[in-house]
Amino acid sequence: MDPDSVAKAFVEHYYSTFDANRAGLANLYQEGSMLTFEGQKIMGSQNIVAKLTSLPFQQCKHHITTVDCQPSGPAGGMLVFVSGNLQLAGEQHALKFSQMFHLMPTPQGSFYVFNDIFRLNYA
Amino acid sequence: MDPDSVAKAFVEHYYSTFDANRAGLANLYQEGSMLTFEGQKIMGSQNIVAKLTSLPFQQCKHHITTVDCQPSGPAGGMLVFVSGNLQLAGEQHALKFSQMFHLMPTPQGSFYVFNDIFRLNYA
Repeated sequence: MDPDSVAKAFVEHYYSTFDANRAGLANLYQEGSMLTFEGQKIMGSQNIVAKLTSLPFQQCKHHITTVDCQPSGPAGGMLVFVSGNLQLAGEQHALKFSQMFHLMPTPQGSFYVFNDIFRLNYA
Repeated sequence: MDPDSVAKAFVEHYYSTFDANRAGLANLYQEGSMLTFEGQKIMGSQNIVAKLTSLPFQQCKHHITTVDCQPSGPAGGMLVFVSGNLQLAGEQHALKFSQMFHLMPTPQGSFYVFNDIFRLNYA
């Protein structure tokens, strides 16, 4: 698979899991993983999922606008850069967001999220 | 210096150079550097600067809204995630943008840009 297809598949998997079952994202992070969420720094799969599951909304739907990717070290790593809209249940207007992931290969031939930075893009 | 201060200093240097003398950005990239600009992939310092200096506007001014950073491998590397506004000369409205850099340390104790992904955030 080419890197762009891998990035697209990861992004679809990530946001469909986020929208259906946020706790299921735990498998995509590891102990050393970092999330910066609207400027707040969080480390480790357990803390990251605790943050994501405690966000003050229940239902949401991500709509992806763009996905860019580049290889980046260490070997087999990949940067994925996403822009899109986040629709919260009961809200009239969607929120624009940008997010980046640094994915690292696992011995099983998959990827986990080493770095994750999320920002809303206020109008 | 702490990583956040390094990231902030890099971002200020990058955009003030961009706004004053785009060709001067050549020193911040190397042969293996990658830029993805609005989906277009460009590799190598010379090609990247050729792209940036050929953008269809002469004067511009970047205004930074947020700067986030995380360490990421290889050792000493740093991810920098920026959101802001780009004001083009003669245009009434600024353009919103997001950009990420993967910075790598140089033997001289500075950094160069290994990965660079830029996107305008259309309203």
